[in-house]
Amino acid sequence: MYRSHNCGELRSSHIGQEVTLSGWVQISRDLGGLTFVDLRDRYGITQVVFNMDDNATLCEQARKLGREFVIRVTGTVNERSNKNANRPTGDIEIIASSLEILNASKVPPFIIEEETDGGDDIRMAYRYLDIRRPNVQKNLIFRSQLAIQSRKYLSDLGFIEVETPVLIKSTPEGARDFVVPSRMNPGEFYALPQSPQTFKQILMVAGMDKYFQIVKCFRDEDLRADRQPEFTQIDCEMSFVTQEDILNTFEGLTKSVFQELKGIDLGDFPRMSYDEAMERYGSDKPDLRFDMEFIEITDRAKGYDFPVFDNSEYTVAIVAKGAADQFSNKDIKKLTEWMQRPQVGAKGLVNIKYTAEGVKSSVGKFYSDDVLNEWKTDVFSAEDGDMVLILTGEKEKTQKQMNVLRLEMADRLDLIKAGDFKPLWVVDFPLLEWDEESERFHAMHHPFTSPKAEDMDRMMNGDHETMKSLRADAYDLVINGSEIGGGSIRIHDRELQSKNFDLLGFSKEEAEEQFGFLMGAFEYGAPPHGGIAFGFDRLCAVMNGQSSIRDFIAFPKNSSGRDVMINSPSAIAKEQLVELSIDLDIKEKHEK
Amino acid sequence: MYRSHNCGELRSSHIGQEVTLSGWVQISRDLGGLTFVDLRDRYGITQVVFNMDDNATLCEQARKLGREFVIRVTGTVNERSNKNANRPTGDIEIIASSLEILNASKVPPFIIEEETDGGDDIRMAYRYLDIRRPNVQKNLIFRSQLAIQSRKYLSDLGFIEVETPVLIKSTPEGARDFVVPSRMNPGEFYALPQSPQTFKQILMVAGMDKYFQIVKCFRDEDLRADRQPEFTQIDCEMSFVTQEDILNTFEGLTKSVFQELKGIDLGDFPRMSYDEAMERYGSDKPDLRFDMEFIEITDRAKGYDFPVFDNSEYTVAIVAKGAADQFSNKDIKKLTEWMQRPQVGAKGLVNIKYTAEGVKSSVGKFYSDDVLNEWKTDVFSAEDGDMVLILTGEKEKTQKQMNVLRLEMADRLDLIKAGDFKPLWVVDFPLLEWDEESERFHAMHHPFTSPKAEDMDRMMNGDHETMKSLRADAYDLVINGSEIGGGSIRIHDRELQSKNFDLLGFSKEEAEEQFGFLMGAFEYGAPPHGGIAFGFDRLCAVMNGQSSIRDFIAFPKNSSGRDVMINSPSAIAKEQLVELSIDLDIKEKHEK
Repeated sequence: MYRSHNCGELRSSHIGQEVTLSGWVQISRDLGGLTFVDLRDRYGITQVVFNMDDNATLCEQARKLGREFVIRVTGTVNERSNKNANRPTGDIEIIASSLEILNASKVPPFIIEEETDGGDDIRMAYRYLDIRRPNVQKNLIFRSQLAIQSRKYLSDLGFIEVETPVLIKSTPEGARDFVVPSRMNPGEFYALPQSPQTFKQILMVAGMDKYFQIVKCFRDEDLRADRQPEFTQIDCEMSFVTQEDILNTFEGLTKSVFQELKGIDLGDFPRMSYDEAMERYGSDKPDLRFDMEFIEITDRAKGYDFPVFDNSEYTVAIVAKGAADQFSNKDIKKLTEWMQRPQVGAKGLVNIKYTAEGVKSSVGKFYSDDVLNEWKTDVFSAEDGDMVLILTGEKEKTQKQMNVLRLEMADRLDLIKAGDFKPLWVVDFPLLEWDEESERFHAMHHPFTSPKAEDMDRMMNGDHETMKSLRADAYDLVINGSEIGGGSIRIHDRELQSKNFDLLGFSKEEAEEQFGFLMGAFEYGAPPHGGIAFGFDRLCAVMNGQSSIRDFIAFPKNSSGRDVMINSPSAIAKEQLVELSIDLDIKEKHEK
Repeated sequence: MYRSHNCGELRSSHIGQEVTLSGWVQISRDLGGLTFVDLRDRYGITQVVFNMDDNATLCEQARKLGREFVIRVTGTVNERSNKNANRPTGDIEIIASSLEILNASKVPPFIIEEETDGGDDIRMAYRYLDIRRPNVQKNLIFRSQLAIQSRKYLSDLGFIEVETPVLIKSTPEGARDFVVPSRMNPGEFYALPQSPQTFKQILMVAGMDKYFQIVKCFRDEDLRADRQPEFTQIDCEMSFVTQEDILNTFEGLTKSVFQELKGIDLGDFPRMSYDEAMERYGSDKPDLRFDMEFIEITDRAKGYDFPVFDNSEYTVAIVAKGAADQFSNKDIKKLTEWMQRPQVGAKGLVNIKYTAEGVKSSVGKFYSDDVLNEWKTDVFSAEDGDMVLILTGEKEKTQKQMNVLRLEMADRLDLIKAGDFKPLWVVDFPLLEWDEESERFHAMHHPFTSPKAEDMDRMMNGDHETMKSLRADAYDLVINGSEIGGGSIRIHDRELQSKNFDLLGFSKEEAEEQFGFLMGAFEYGAPPHGGIAFGFDRLCAVMNGQSSIRDFIAFPKNSSGRDVMINSPSAIAKEQLVELSIDLDIKEKHEK
């Protein structure tokens, strides 16, 4: 027997009992006559005491224990004289009567505590040590609990978890696929799913009625800061439902997991159309934890001989409450430069400061104090101490830039209260986006999304311009400015689906080759259906007020898609290539 | 609103209510004045009545409904005059007041009922219609429930579900890997996991203590009848445990799922050593639902001038109770030929029939009636009417052949009672198997399995012959002759692991390259640990008394690894190959 109890469960009620514990040496302190060992496992830390007077040999052994040694200790539970109120086991200690080293440890390359001295790279290389840190362990346990709670909620509603295949078919639409050469079918490839989209729709055609799956998905993308090549979705689909049914079901799921895991009542989620979100926040995932809504002043700003505003399509302001004092001219210059970086691309940044001493503005030459003071009350509802920031230019670009500025200002002004959660449904997305560059439509959500019922005729019969105005039964769940999930009512009619593929630039042959099975299925009694997918990694992070999904993934990959612990990807044997009927297109890399 | 109720929930208590149902037309019967439509969804079937007298237009519409049309019906719940006791909704019917066709259907290519006329190939091509059959739906729902129950059981014990990566590293040991070319790391490949073995061990080193995962695994094998390239495991690992702890935990899991999902109390599971299983049943996964244990007569049969037995290493008998009358000489000749097929490879088959008229044997020339009658009581405990079947030859081969014969006889004699479940732990497996052909050891379980504590010294210091006698803390759970799962206590010591790789024919460099991260992890405080994995697909099938795992997989692949519904694998675009820095090794196949 390795243990009678774990390292987190002994309390005063156990005093006097003989117990056996196993775990890791967190720290060993030699105080001469006494040696104290903090023994750690997933459940907690228990203090073990070795007494030189009682058992000199044992105490000598204990003195030699290094950090992270794995030991088994037997002893008696004793009341501590100096109790540690910060530790659940802090009332007791173990007076050791025997000690066995189960495994030694080299000195770990970084400190295994919540606060560590290990950088990202070394912690990833020694991920088995990194995961021993209680905060990382807590994250992984949270993830497990979130999965349990999500499954429970959906199962209770009659959702069936169905496993869809991982080895599927490559479809060039969307992001890049990871592909898998088929040995048994030379020259042919499977692809790993970017999502189980078509399979879950097939399951609806198959009458499964309510499907869900917590499932790995794969995208071979260039990895930005917080993307992973493999990620996890809570993937759902329902038959015989309207958008309203889906929003209510998954609002319920979200409320339930916040309530059960965080003790937070989210209340009812507000809804906002895509257009409104863009007008008010310049983003389809606005962060509602703070105000600073957009105030459009395009027309208002014209006619003052300031050519930049006079000739602009769109001029927009935000009011940074109480920021006038906090931003010196130098700060504003720096902020302007920050906004002018290529990643953001603003041409300039106009400011107006309202203070007790009067109004000051970078465009004071064109706008008199009277005008700016009139705006102060009529337009900005500003007070003394507030600073107004203004951007101008092409509408869509300027909205995006102002969104960046709004988020940045919230951060600098410390407007976000820790533990605050603001959910929002964004609805009524456009069906199609016109892409100037490729001169074709893209699906705003995906090619299977249905236009709204009232737009179907216009979609089947309208002209090119009409297509730009089609609205979809598509929706996103946003929390604190992060997109948690999105979904749509799907097309379930072959003709409409075929029309959509046309609009998206598929030839009949391409559509048939890639999605013929789905369009075929639509001819055999496909029910009306729709669904949603939540980013599971993202939901974990947002629920814990953290920004990186990597902290909630046991074995994440780095930005080159590499697992540095196992050193993967790696070269494979020549024989494997031969069996798979493939060859490398770069000779030098393959040496095995 | 598409429905107020589903098609399985209306009862007498709803009589008089106005309801709306949506579903599929199972059948429509036009009886002149009345048209009856059976409306089906996942939850059941409800009868809908259209009355020519009440609403002729509506009834005309209903007459035109084809099989599998998707409709919405509103009407009033009415008491049926002729109740259908076989159907939960059989007390009521809906008198329709409105009808809407939500989607039409072509005539389906096979009958969508439990008994279908569709062959395997067509059902797989139209899997969305196949899944509409209630038995297939029931299988998928069972699978979902088994996952829920398994997760609940393990979570309640403190197991944490951790997702391990799907894009890992290729290791030539074991079966063939599926590989995934890395675009960002030209010439390098990921592999899909054959199991999360090394990651779950890493999680133990990381202090996660109790891990589980219901997880997809992948093997690029030539697909025998009941193998799939992707399959699902309940994968588990525990720290600070002995074999006993693991057997008890997973016996508990198995009992729990049988109790909860089948209402069956399995009782305590017997245990049998590998050696004993081989001696008594010639198999490490004996089916205990019937007897016919092996009776070795090697020595007993020698000395009667029958050279076949005299010169044999091993002669073994089974007693087929009451089979003497059922097997004519012709039957026995056929059975002998069946045993002589190359797949089995028996040289011959000796029989002794004990009847009221006396004893008859194919080796009666050598063995007198007196001898055979003495054996009847002393050796075979046979009675009149029994038939003894005897095989002889090289021991291991003959054991395997007799195992085949035993299973075949059980089938022919109908010895297996439906609904009978006989679990068994097989324990004390050999650590290593010597393979004559490749002249090297293979790991009986896998390279991470620990020898028993008492065999460790012999393993580190023994000679070649010693290695063959090492026993492992490895165990299999067998139910009804199917291997449900297997596992072992793992090595957690670098030296022992390194020695095992030596024995398995790895060079130091190969071992380091492939498993260096694991051996490295063992140096930083690896706890004693062990685990098990259950074949989830297999468990589903066995619990339902079915032999094929394909019936429990939503989208299985055929024996060429092909998904015929989506037609995958398939060729990919030239640009994809270029991006991935690979080339096809067969030119003609790639035309895109």
